[in-house]
Amino acid sequence: MEINKEYKCHGGRVTYYSHQSLNTKTAMSFSLSIPKDVQGKIPYIIFLSGLTCSEDNFTTKANAYKKASELGLAILVPDTSPRGKDIPDDESYDLGQGAGFYINAVKSPWSENFQMESYIIDELIPLAEQEFNLDSARKSITGHSMGGHGALTLYLKYRDRFKSCSAFSPIVAPSKVAWGEKAFSNYLGDCKTEWLKHDACELVSTSKDDNNGSVILIDQGLDDDFLTEQLRPELFKSACEKSGQKLELRLQAGYDHSYFFIQSFIDEHLDWHFKYLNK
Amino acid sequence: MEINKEYKCHGGRVTYYSHQSLNTKTAMSFSLSIPKDVQGKIPYIIFLSGLTCSEDNFTTKANAYKKASELGLAILVPDTSPRGKDIPDDESYDLGQGAGFYINAVKSPWSENFQMESYIIDELIPLAEQEFNLDSARKSITGHSMGGHGALTLYLKYRDRFKSCSAFSPIVAPSKVAWGEKAFSNYLGDCKTEWLKHDACELVSTSKDDNNGSVILIDQGLDDDFLTEQLRPELFKSACEKSGQKLELRLQAGYDHSYFFIQSFIDEHLDWHFKYLNK
Repeated sequence: MEINKEYKCHGGRVTYYSHQSLNTKTAMSFSLSIPKDVQGKIPYIIFLSGLTCSEDNFTTKANAYKKASELGLAILVPDTSPRGKDIPDDESYDLGQGAGFYINAVKSPWSENFQMESYIIDELIPLAEQEFNLDSARKSITGHSMGGHGALTLYLKYRDRFKSCSAFSPIVAPSKVAWGEKAFSNYLGDCKTEWLKHDACELVSTSKDDNNGSVILIDQGLDDDFLTEQLRPELFKSACEKSGQKLELRLQAGYDHSYFFIQSFIDEHLDWHFKYLNK
Repeated sequence: MEINKEYKCHGGRVTYYSHQSLNTKTAMSFSLSIPKDVQGKIPYIIFLSGLTCSEDNFTTKANAYKKASELGLAILVPDTSPRGKDIPDDESYDLGQGAGFYINAVKSPWSENFQMESYIIDELIPLAEQEFNLDSARKSITGHSMGGHGALTLYLKYRDRFKSCSAFSPIVAPSKVAWGEKAFSNYLGDCKTEWLKHDACELVSTSKDDNNGSVILIDQGLDDDFLTEQLRPELFKSACEKSGQKLELRLQAGYDHSYFFIQSFIDEHLDWHFKYLNK
């Protein structure tokens, strides 16, 4: 594992790493913030980023580190896909590099490298917990847009691994919206039954809340240009109501899809997770 | 004046504007944040950015808007120079576009457009106060690196205009360091007597603290790569001691020259200015 850049920040440190991944067969990068004055195993949050983003967007723009340092939380921010000039890509922003969707592709040419679910769950998390004294028993997950989809689906698939889940403007029904249809048909093929295994609205109907009864928090800006076509939080609300999953869906007037929205509510998300991490 | 982008942020709004400047004879851009729930004239801070920066760096990376919104402060962030393909430039990062140094150039080819002192003082500030209900009697100035030089020198030149001044890792002695020597010889010519009119260490010796007795606050990271060659805060400390100017110089262990440093202390700078703005 290599350190690319390291900064002191709010008394702790923010470090950018890269390492060779067995799952994506590429170098993968991530950032990790460690709060000041930590003792013992550190509870932490995983933040999954949206389309076009790398680990850098959240790290520089989300304004999370003051509150995280106060609460004693670490934050792990993966990249959104494998990258490189020999790695498959697409001209559009919503497929290929920068658009891994946190699933394992099964279709060529994507399947060789685009194994983001296994990368996050089976490789990055264990590696980070081993290398950095992160507390494997106290982690939560959040994300934005495509990364909100990632946070919700990984939480619902691996529920016993996470204390809590939240999301900013997530894609909740990828099987029903253009972003998801494009990514899933390319990565998974045309069988929609397969798609449903990676659709938060479907997963919440079948996932059993067998560990902690935590409430999922979602913030969604009402001036988000993607709200009605791509995000559709009402579908997730309805699915949660049917399944009994507790959900706090907050529709925030005037906010859009940007990091100015994320920075406005990130402290409340950290407080939310902190409560569950210390139960 | 045109709105380029606008975001709701921490209950207020952050807006990017551009306008045609009479001083630089180019379009100039800036950002302005207005806090939530304002009534009457709004006290405000001007933040001047460093080499290579535009108004975007502070606006996206400094994490200032939560605290600013809580305090009810607006923040005005100018660009660092005129820009455009027909505007003089230099291959190096520390001269020309992105490196205006907040002075009025007198030498060709720079003098035609590089009139940043007049632009900030005689054009942008009056324009902003007229258009946005900013309180002309309650403004303070701060900045980073080259913008720290800008904040200190404009404060010392126009002392009756500002309630207080602070800086992050400022260039305090441009006449004595490579960045300043290069910029001043190009913009002002070889007469060093002219340079001293734009050197904070010199200005503090002659500037009279005739209005408010406010203490200048400087934060400087001790792991800043530019500390010993370009910044040299000890020179300003010595000049302040000689002149009677009160200075709070804080040397921050482990911090570098980046926005991770700025974001770690920006709230304390806003609190510092708030105190003077409400005296």
